[in-house]
Amino acid sequence: MTNYLDQHRDRFLNELLELLRIPSVSADSKFKADVRRAAEYVRDRIQDAGADSVKIYETPGHPIVYGEKMVDPAAPTVLVYGHYDVQPADPYELWDSPPFEPVIKNDRIYARGACDDKGQFYMHIKALEFMLATHSLHCNVKIMIEGEEEVGSDHLGEFVKQHRDMLACDTILISDTSIIANDVPSIEVGLRGLTYLEVEVVGANRDLHSGVYGGAVANPINVLCDMIASLKDENGHITIPGFYDNVEVLSDEARKAMNEAPFDLDAYQKDLGIDEVMGEAGYTTIERTSIRPTLDVNGIWGGYTGEGAKTVLPAKAFAKISMRLVPNQTDKEIEALFTRHFESIAPASVKVKVKPHHGGLPYVNPTDSVEYEAASRAMEEAFGKKPIPTRGGGSIPIVALFEQELGVKSVLMGFGLDIDALHSPNESYGLFNYYKGIETIPLFYKHYAALKKAE
Amino acid sequence: MTNYLDQHRDRFLNELLELLRIPSVSADSKFKADVRRAAEYVRDRIQDAGADSVKIYETPGHPIVYGEKMVDPAAPTVLVYGHYDVQPADPYELWDSPPFEPVIKNDRIYARGACDDKGQFYMHIKALEFMLATHSLHCNVKIMIEGEEEVGSDHLGEFVKQHRDMLACDTILISDTSIIANDVPSIEVGLRGLTYLEVEVVGANRDLHSGVYGGAVANPINVLCDMIASLKDENGHITIPGFYDNVEVLSDEARKAMNEAPFDLDAYQKDLGIDEVMGEAGYTTIERTSIRPTLDVNGIWGGYTGEGAKTVLPAKAFAKISMRLVPNQTDKEIEALFTRHFESIAPASVKVKVKPHHGGLPYVNPTDSVEYEAASRAMEEAFGKKPIPTRGGGSIPIVALFEQELGVKSVLMGFGLDIDALHSPNESYGLFNYYKGIETIPLFYKHYAALKKAE
Repeated sequence: MTNYLDQHRDRFLNELLELLRIPSVSADSKFKADVRRAAEYVRDRIQDAGADSVKIYETPGHPIVYGEKMVDPAAPTVLVYGHYDVQPADPYELWDSPPFEPVIKNDRIYARGACDDKGQFYMHIKALEFMLATHSLHCNVKIMIEGEEEVGSDHLGEFVKQHRDMLACDTILISDTSIIANDVPSIEVGLRGLTYLEVEVVGANRDLHSGVYGGAVANPINVLCDMIASLKDENGHITIPGFYDNVEVLSDEARKAMNEAPFDLDAYQKDLGIDEVMGEAGYTTIERTSIRPTLDVNGIWGGYTGEGAKTVLPAKAFAKISMRLVPNQTDKEIEALFTRHFESIAPASVKVKVKPHHGGLPYVNPTDSVEYEAASRAMEEAFGKKPIPTRGGGSIPIVALFEQELGVKSVLMGFGLDIDALHSPNESYGLFNYYKGIETIPLFYKHYAALKKAE
Repeated sequence: MTNYLDQHRDRFLNELLELLRIPSVSADSKFKADVRRAAEYVRDRIQDAGADSVKIYETPGHPIVYGEKMVDPAAPTVLVYGHYDVQPADPYELWDSPPFEPVIKNDRIYARGACDDKGQFYMHIKALEFMLATHSLHCNVKIMIEGEEEVGSDHLGEFVKQHRDMLACDTILISDTSIIANDVPSIEVGLRGLTYLEVEVVGANRDLHSGVYGGAVANPINVLCDMIASLKDENGHITIPGFYDNVEVLSDEARKAMNEAPFDLDAYQKDLGIDEVMGEAGYTTIERTSIRPTLDVNGIWGGYTGEGAKTVLPAKAFAKISMRLVPNQTDKEIEALFTRHFESIAPASVKVKVKPHHGGLPYVNPTDSVEYEAASRAMEEAFGKKPIPTRGGGSIPIVALFEQELGVKSVLMGFGLDIDALHSPNESYGLFNYYKGIETIPLFYKHYAALKKAE
C-alpha cells in the first residue's frame, strides 16, 4: 500500500492544490462560475480514479457531483459525502498568502478550503484510486460531493429524496471533522445543529443629523445592541423563552467522561491569544463547545463605517445571528422561537425584520455500531492508537437528513486539527493529515467489509 | 435692495450650484483635491464680491479662506464664519439624485452641502456683493470660511490664535443653524457640545469557526453590544459615572418657556415615519434635543457583512460613538470619563481600544446683547415677525473657541429648516431661505451699526 502512495505522493498533492486554486465560494454569487469549474474538476478526478457513471447533477443552486464503483452486490455499500464549496475568504488582508493561491509552509497546505472540505474529501478520491489500482476494494463505493454545504445544503435534501435508490447504502462516510491531535486520534460522534438568521432594525425613514435629532429619536444601532445584549443573561444563558426546553441533559457520568479527553486550557488560551475564555456558567470549555447550545453574532453593520467621523443618526442597523443547537432542539423550532422573541422585544420606536438563512439539525452517533467499530479499527491501525469518541461543536446539517431519507447513520471520520483555522484567514491542512487520511480510508473499507461479513 | 437681488437672482443661484458640484468631503482623504478646489472657488467669489486681501491660508489639514472689507475704522467690525467642507454623502444609493449634481425641485436645491453650510455661508458673500454694489455697507466685514468643520475644525483654533489681530472684531456672524419654520423665524442662542470616539473590541487573535469555538470564546460583537447597551439605563439615562455632574439644570420657568415654542409631535413623527419618539425619561422632545446631553452610536461594524451566511466568530468589532454635550460639560472631561468607563466595563476575555475623534464645547448666548437685538430686528424686518430664541441640538465647536480666543460672542442667524436633511441623503435648502438670507444679512449690518452708534 505505502508503495503506491509513495510513488504518487506528489501527484496526489498537486491535484489537490489545483482544486484549491478554484475560488468556489458558494455564498457569493460572483463566484458562481468558479463553483461550477470546481464541480467539473471534481467530476474529472472521480472519473480518473476509476469510478463509473460519474456525472454532474444540476440543482436550482450549485451542482452535485456523483460517481460510484459497484464491485460486488453481496458486499456492503458505503456512500462518501463531501463538499467542494468553501467559505468566503474575506477579510483578505489578514491572509499571509492569497487564499486561492495555495502554498506549502512547515508541512502544511495554506489555502481556503485546504481542510474544509476540499483537502478532506479529496483524500477519498485518492483512496478510491489506490484501492482500484491495487484491486483491494471490497465494498461498493458511492461518492457524492455537493457545492452548497457552506450555505446550508439547500438543494441536497431534494436531490437525496429524488435519488434514494441511486444513493442506497449501508452507511455514509464523511471526512469533514477533526481529531484531537496527530498523536491523539478521535472520531466525532456528535454534531451541533444550526439556526442562522439576519435581522434588520429600522428607525426613521432617513439618516438624521445626530445633533438635531439625537436623544429624541430611536437610534437603530443602540436599539439593536440593546436587543442583542438582552439575548443572554449575566451567566451566559440564552434568554429566548423556550430555548432550552428540548435540550438534551447529559448524565454526570457522561459529562465526567467527556471532560477526561485531553484538553489544556492554558495552551488553548495561548493559541487564541486571549487571557480568559468566556461562556455559559457551570460548564467547561469542552462542554460549551459540544453539548451546550450557543448564540453568536456573526456580523453587524450600520451607520457610518468609513474614515473619520460622521455625526449621523442612521435609519437602519443589521446583524447576522446564528445559534448552535444540541439534541433534541430543531432548527425550525429555534428559528420560530428566536423570531417571535426578537420581534416581541423591539421597542415601539423601531420596526424589526427577521430573515432566516439556512439551518440544520443536531446529530449524535452510537459508538457500539459496526460502522463506528470499523472506523475505530482503521484509525487504530493507521495511527497506532485507539481513537477517542468526541462530540464536535460544528454542524453538518445534511447528516441528520441522510438518516431521515436514507435510513442510515454517518461515520464522521475526519482528519483535521483545531489549528487548521477553518472559516478563518490562513486556513491550512497538514500534509501528515492529508496522507494519513488517504492511508486510513482503505483500512475502514477493509474492516467494514470484514465486520459486515461476520455479522 | 430688492431690485439688485431680483436682477442677479439667477446668477446668485448658479454660483451656489457651481460650488455644490465640488465634492469637498473633509472626512475622506480621497476628496482632498476637491476640498482644495472648493477653497479656491470660494476665494475667487469673495474676491469678485469686492473684498480686499482675499487669500487662502494653508493649514496642516484643509485650507482656510479669508477676505475683508474695512469701510470705516470707527464702524463696528463683524467677522463672518462658515465652512465650505461637507459631510460624506454615503449611503449614495439613498439619494434620489447624485449628491454632487445639484437639482432644483419644488423650489428646493437638492445636494450635499446645499444647506450645511455652502448654501448658508454663500448668502453672506452675495450679501456683501450687494452692499458694496449699492454702497450700503456701514460695518467692517471680515469673512473666514474653513474646510474642516465637519471633522472638528482641528486646525482653525491654531489659525485663530496666530491671527488674533487680523480677526479682531466686535462680533461673529454665523449662518449654520435653522429657523423653526419659514413663517416662524427664530435665532439659536444655544448649541450642544460634542465628544466623538471610536472603539475597538478585540477577542481572539484570528477569526474563528463559530461551531468549533462558539460558546467558549468571547465574541467581540456580542461583547460590544453588551457594553454599548450598558451605557444607558432603562430610562435612557447615560450610566457613565460623573457624566451628569456638570450638566446645567434649567429652572422650571425656563423649561416651561422653551416648551411653548411651536412644536407638533404628530407632524414630527409623521415626517420621520416613526410611531413613537424615544429618549430620556422626564423630558420633552424639545428638551431632549437641546438642553439634555445624548449618546448615539454613529456607526458599527464587525464580522461578516457580505451576501449570504458565514459562520464566523470574528476577532474584532468596532463602533463610532458620539455624545452631545450641554453647559457646563466639556468635551475633554467627557472624553476622559467615557474612556475610563468603557475600558473598565470590558470583560477580561477581550481587549478594548478607545480612540478620540474631534470634540467641541457647548455654548449659550445672551438674548439681551446688542448683537442679538440687531439680528432680531433684521429678521423681524425681513420676515415681518419677531424671531423666537431657541436652543439647538447641533454643535459648532468653534463658537466656544472664538469666545475664548477673540473675546467676542457669536450670533447664530441661520436660515435652514428641519426638513433640510443635514448629514442625510437628499439634503436640500429652500430657495426661499437662500434668498431670504441674502435679504436679511444686510439688515443685520444696518441695525448693528445703528445700535452700536447709539451705545
